[in-house]
Amino acid sequence: MTTTVDARTSAAFDLGPARALSCRECGHQIPLAAEFACSECFGPLEVAYDFGPVRREDIEAGPKSIWRYRNLLPVPTDVQSHPNTEPGLTRLVKADRLAAALGVRSLWVKDDTGNPTHSFKDRVVAVALAAARQLGFKVLACPSTGNLANAVAAAAARAGWESVVLIPSSLEQAKILTTAVYDGALIAVEGNYDDVNRLATQLAAEHEDWAFVNVNVRPYYAEGSKTLAYEVAEQLGWRLPDQIVVPVASGSQLTKVDKGFRELGELGLVDATPYRVFGAQATGCSPVATAYKGGTDVVTPVRPDTIARSLAIGAPADGPYVLDTVRRTGGAVEDVTDEEVVEGIRLLARTEGIFAETAGGVTVATAKKLIETGQLDPDADTVLLITGDGLKTLDAVSDRIGPKAVVPPNAAAVTEALGL
Amino acid sequence: MTTTVDARTSAAFDLGPARALSCRECGHQIPLAAEFACSECFGPLEVAYDFGPVRREDIEAGPKSIWRYRNLLPVPTDVQSHPNTEPGLTRLVKADRLAAALGVRSLWVKDDTGNPTHSFKDRVVAVALAAARQLGFKVLACPSTGNLANAVAAAAARAGWESVVLIPSSLEQAKILTTAVYDGALIAVEGNYDDVNRLATQLAAEHEDWAFVNVNVRPYYAEGSKTLAYEVAEQLGWRLPDQIVVPVASGSQLTKVDKGFRELGELGLVDATPYRVFGAQATGCSPVATAYKGGTDVVTPVRPDTIARSLAIGAPADGPYVLDTVRRTGGAVEDVTDEEVVEGIRLLARTEGIFAETAGGVTVATAKKLIETGQLDPDADTVLLITGDGLKTLDAVSDRIGPKAVVPPNAAAVTEALGL
Ligand SMILES: Cc1ncc(COP(=O)(O)O)c(C=O)c1O
Ligand SMILES: Cc1ncc(COP(=O)(O)O)c(C=O)c1O
Ligand SMILES: [Zn+2]
Ligand SMILES: [Zn+2]
Repeated sequence: MTTTVDARTSAAFDLGPARALSCRECGHQIPLAAEFACSECFGPLEVAYDFGPVRREDIEAGPKSIWRYRNLLPVPTDVQSHPNTEPGLTRLVKADRLAAALGVRSLWVKDDTGNPTHSFKDRVVAVALAAARQLGFKVLACPSTGNLANAVAAAAARAGWESVVLIPSSLEQAKILTTAVYDGALIAVEGNYDDVNRLATQLAAEHEDWAFVNVNVRPYYAEGSKTLAYEVAEQLGWRLPDQIVVPVASGSQLTKVDKGFRELGELGLVDATPYRVFGAQATGCSPVATAYKGGTDVVTPVRPDTIARSLAIGAPADGPYVLDTVRRTGGAVEDVTDEEVVEGIRLLARTEGIFAETAGGVTVATAKKLIETGQLDPDADTVLLITGDGLKTLDAVSDRIGPKAVVPPNAAAVTEALGL
Repeated sequence: MTTTVDARTSAAFDLGPARALSCRECGHQIPLAAEFACSECFGPLEVAYDFGPVRREDIEAGPKSIWRYRNLLPVPTDVQSHPNTEPGLTRLVKADRLAAALGVRSLWVKDDTGNPTHSFKDRVVAVALAAARQLGFKVLACPSTGNLANAVAAAAARAGWESVVLIPSSLEQAKILTTAVYDGALIAVEGNYDDVNRLATQLAAEHEDWAFVNVNVRPYYAEGSKTLAYEVAEQLGWRLPDQIVVPVASGSQLTKVDKGFRELGELGLVDATPYRVFGAQATGCSPVATAYKGGTDVVTPVRPDTIARSLAIGAPADGPYVLDTVRRTGGAVEDVTDEEVVEGIRLLARTEGIFAETAGGVTVATAKKLIETGQLDPDADTVLLITGDGLKTLDAVSDRIGPKAVVPPNAAAVTEALGL
């Protein structure tokens, strides 16, 4: 199950406050290394920290990117001295018009479309690259169907690393172009995403200097999502929201947002006020919502069938931890139809001028449903995570929208078309 | 030539430090109003200021958007209390790999693809909206072929304003969708961009509460581009670069970058060190470069024929002022072929992980040519403005790039495809 040279131990690496890898199932700890599965029980490994004192002022005086939180991440203190993509510190938008449309009192939208390749994946990939450099890897790699491919190819280009990005050969032309332009090794695999994923695990085992960000350096990679929680809290004026809605594919992001909030409370950077975490899925790929509603701990894999392709992971690795998190915090996991996803995209665009990809449509539509069903408190401060960009999933809306009118080039025709 | 009600005078408006509109040709001043052409000579009007003391600390403590510079812009002091898009404070990337490829010593790329609708147009539109609100307008409008349409429709949606966006009916489907999604009045006009533009001027005269951002509120709108200069200087540690390369369509942006640098020096926010401003055009629409090289002050209109459509303004309103600026600062205007534009896009993506639209390709390719011809000093600190996103102009690269290989789903096939 491991992929690494034996000599790699903690002493050799500067990964900032990170101190060990800890098994999420049995708690077994090992020194920092390029490992991702527990040698005792095969459970997933997670980064454990030994934080020094961290002060708001130091963060505020830091870089205008996720690196302002470097003392909370598994990256070296001098992380900024190597080229990387500097994602993060994206807008937290007070969304009064969307709030009115949804019938909630105070609502914010975290707009992660402002990242370098326009999705939150730039956060996790930047952390993976920084850690991989310390761990001695030389090549940045991933299996992906889109956002991750963009982020990995771009980050590798910026760093001057080789990249190997594996995609299903059936992928849309636009997503191929937006990865190929960075000129890494983009390989189209004749097979579906599951085939590509399996191939990545196999290649990670064979090539010990290839860092597959979401496979063999996954424990480090996943920590990047904590920065969403840190930024939300800082941008709210150093406090936690009452409720947050997070899209769920593998479930990693949701569990790390929770981890981020908890750490801020433990470190005294915010008051440790209660918060509720909600998960959002598309009905066509909703194994975690199904388990949540069924009251079970077991997430049964599904075959995805939804326009929300970036969330279409049928066997979500972190599904059980998502269930833990939402149950512990008093949240829920809900799902919405593709029709509702498109309406969610349009509602957000119309009210706040933010054009999200299908994953964002899932988040908005799920928030709407959670409000309508009384699961979200309309009087509590609520944050929605918009994690990807509408420019990448134009097909989702292309048959619904267009010009209001086509007119000849004279003023009267325009005025008439507008009904004035 | 004017479009407005007579009662609108300065006293009525809070536009922050803005004090008057001043004619760029004859110097005639009028009170702040919704005017854009001089009543004496028909010359273009520009905002004149009466700046109070402005300190670095106050800017640094301000919002993480262009509004940190609100005391240098024609917007009210409380600009943030009304919903707007909060663009700006985009990454300034130290581009060492691109620098090495181009043979320059120290190079930075200002990556404006991180803005809300992924181009610098969000800056100018946000300022136009803030000013238009003060000036009593109710509708945000523009003629556009792309980036401006996105920015206007999004900003209006966010503000809860109506928008009227006029586009040529032949526009590509993707650009129609990325504007239509915001649900304003998108009107496709049977005609070319010149027809659409004429129509906008006519409609601006007929509808006194319609703010056509680049027509009747153009003096305010144009000031938004100064924020590129402010950010570059602040992000360099409060100093001016030695050289900057700016893409030129109407030429407004280039002249406002110069204005921004000058103001910073005059206000003592930076040392007023010399800097050289360079303009970049595509050869297929290079009227300003032609005039520059011909040693003349007269910009002769051309019929555009280039893939750099966002720069395809054949009769650039600010062309003569661009010539003034580059000659005064010791810069130049250069132009590059469409082939070079595509190579510029690919070079930037490959070296820095930034995927620019054609306008960015123009900037990079022009910088390359300026270096090769000895016009840019390879030893001086240089900044390139990347003002738009590659996701919006995929066609420009679609026939050049793609996967390195298509392989069956097995590890040996991947390794072989990579030549390992
Ligand atoms: C845009 C977007 N949002 C959210 C997610 C969910 O991420 P996770 O796998 O961490 O649940 C993904 C995953 O690919 C994504 O692309
Ligand atoms: C991406 C981009 N860059 C640069 C420009 C140039 O702007 P200006 O008209 O101010 O010269 C434009 C204008 O449309 C643009 O869309
Ligand atoms: Zn274990
Ligand atoms: Zn005049």
